[in-house]
Amino acid sequence: MTSVINVNLPEQSYEIAIAPGSLDQLGEKMTGLQLGKKVLVVSNPTIFKHYGERAINSLKTAGFEVASCILPAGERFKNLNSIQKIYDAALENRLERSATIVALGGGVIGDMAGFAAATWLRGISVVQVPTTLLAMVDSAIGGKTGVNHPQGKNLIGAFHQPRLVLIDPEVLKTLPVREFRAGMAEVIKYGVIWDAELFAQMEASKHLNQLRYIKPELIETILIRSCQAKADVVSKDEKEAGLRAILNYGHTIGHAVESLTGYRLVNHGEAVGIGMVAAGQIAVELGMWQKEETERQNALIQKAGLPTQLPSGVDIAAIIDALQLDKKVKAGKVRFVLPTQMGVVTVTDEVPADTIRQVLQAM
Amino acid sequence: MTSVINVNLPEQSYEIAIAPGSLDQLGEKMTGLQLGKKVLVVSNPTIFKHYGERAINSLKTAGFEVASCILPAGERFKNLNSIQKIYDAALENRLERSATIVALGGGVIGDMAGFAAATWLRGISVVQVPTTLLAMVDSAIGGKTGVNHPQGKNLIGAFHQPRLVLIDPEVLKTLPVREFRAGMAEVIKYGVIWDAELFAQMEASKHLNQLRYIKPELIETILIRSCQAKADVVSKDEKEAGLRAILNYGHTIGHAVESLTGYRLVNHGEAVGIGMVAAGQIAVELGMWQKEETERQNALIQKAGLPTQLPSGVDIAAIIDALQLDKKVKAGKVRFVLPTQMGVVTVTDEVPADTIRQVLQAM
Repeated sequence: MTSVINVNLPEQSYEIAIAPGSLDQLGEKMTGLQLGKKVLVVSNPTIFKHYGERAINSLKTAGFEVASCILPAGERFKNLNSIQKIYDAALENRLERSATIVALGGGVIGDMAGFAAATWLRGISVVQVPTTLLAMVDSAIGGKTGVNHPQGKNLIGAFHQPRLVLIDPEVLKTLPVREFRAGMAEVIKYGVIWDAELFAQMEASKHLNQLRYIKPELIETILIRSCQAKADVVSKDEKEAGLRAILNYGHTIGHAVESLTGYRLVNHGEAVGIGMVAAGQIAVELGMWQKEETERQNALIQKAGLPTQLPSGVDIAAIIDALQLDKKVKAGKVRFVLPTQMGVVTVTDEVPADTIRQVLQAM
Repeated sequence: MTSVINVNLPEQSYEIAIAPGSLDQLGEKMTGLQLGKKVLVVSNPTIFKHYGERAINSLKTAGFEVASCILPAGERFKNLNSIQKIYDAALENRLERSATIVALGGGVIGDMAGFAAATWLRGISVVQVPTTLLAMVDSAIGGKTGVNHPQGKNLIGAFHQPRLVLIDPEVLKTLPVREFRAGMAEVIKYGVIWDAELFAQMEASKHLNQLRYIKPELIETILIRSCQAKADVVSKDEKEAGLRAILNYGHTIGHAVESLTGYRLVNHGEAVGIGMVAAGQIAVELGMWQKEETERQNALIQKAGLPTQLPSGVDIAAIIDALQLDKKVKAGKVRFVLPTQMGVVTVTDEVPADTIRQVLQAM
């Protein structure tokens, strides 16, 4: 059975379709969207080995002409060089304005394929087929695309909404455990910022740190409720003028930690987990959130197998300096998303630097 | 006196302000647009030497914090490396989302500064201060931004409207004659596609090939009527869904010629002039346009000091092959804009390859 979540936007709305085995229906799902014949599948070697053939067969059966562009895996390749490779493939395969890029992979692939689609011929269509939990519940939805600058994450990018997001939960079976846990960080985030019921359901589960220990129904709930949360927020604020900022919960310090560890030692989800622990504690210090609720949050992060402490060797002064480079900085003030009760957050740029320092020192 | 032309768009409208000496009012004109304090001026060494200080003084007097990024001059530097340099300057000067990039220069600077603004932090403001005739009447207006791929012009880009276009006709005094003529190609284009009266006024002028031989009132008319033509078309079709295609008159073959000569031998305006001669003749061959009108067009192109023949050594088969790479290709068919009477054009993808070949061979 397919669960469909609509992302409603003024210029172009689209569906998030969630169904086991749906990878084989990719081509079929794309017909009816009035896309041109040419498709460029962008992926990485590991994912392409697992799922490339099925995706391509499905596209060909539906009548698409398919080429592929395989980029090296990993956040450190999320740069303009990789984008240049997609442009080269687009040129070689003569992608016209009616062509479509299909992003088959995790967040890195989705962000880069989306950015290339946003900027090739000033914008062609993109379809997101996320293969990691993180990409399924977060990065594939909402139209944020981009690459990293050597000195800061996602500093280069564009808003470019996909025409379709197709989620096949079965592909999570090949996802490494660490990557699964990284995705759980974003799921927990939705619980804290938007959906206290989702949070409670995860709390009630005995295990949360490996796919195979989690009931399939809970996985389904996690996917549906997380995508719904993201779709709700994005539909209300496509270009991050206001509400959408709440999705950055845990990301302010998270991005700094990720950047300072060279996008290697700590992955995005782990950094978000650490950032949520820090933000929760900042909220407690400022008297905005109850200590018991922070502890509930931190316990869930731990149950998901995620770190709750700063990686050793990361310099706290460097984190504070890196915060200034964050896209969310406004007039030099760092913007924080802070919880006030489970499922509700507020946005503030009034966090004293001393508080940030103290909280980080205690981690 | 300032002439103001409005570009009306659903999301963000803006003004084109034309006034002699207005470079010194840049800062003043930018206040009131609710821009942040930080401004990055992007320019090239020649233009910056002439006008950088005046622009920066004006901005500083109005209270802006100003940094600059100077890129090498020329179409061959319109690439991702130059964009990377703007990103680096943006990072170094900590440009936040509220910051503004000011493009001070010709079309190359405007396109690159616009693309960097479109993609830095997923989009910051850009103000266009065009210093060439071509940029004033064409590229600074309408939000098309981008860079070249080694194998094709403007293949990489984004739509990103400026917040203001400020035109100071006095800066044309330092524009090399060849560049002035290149701009006249686009002005003649507006005459042919949109404004038969503008065409007639230029026909009535004794000289058209050097700024100093043309009456100041005609220069003013040229700027105002050209900007108005561009604003009219862009307001009706921001993202090139239909009408805007007519602005590509002369550009189909023009882009191919420019690309095949390595963006050096023939500049953009010259290529457009050649492209208009070719397109006019194609229209005649297809029985769509009168021979006498083509001759009027070609005479005006010549009076502006522009070439009307293909540069020697350019391979016609290579031009025809290059047409396939054009952004305007749809399902493999090359789209041509063809005149039907002075001031009126039509768009067609039904031009036989043989006709294109014959016309080019006769040039």
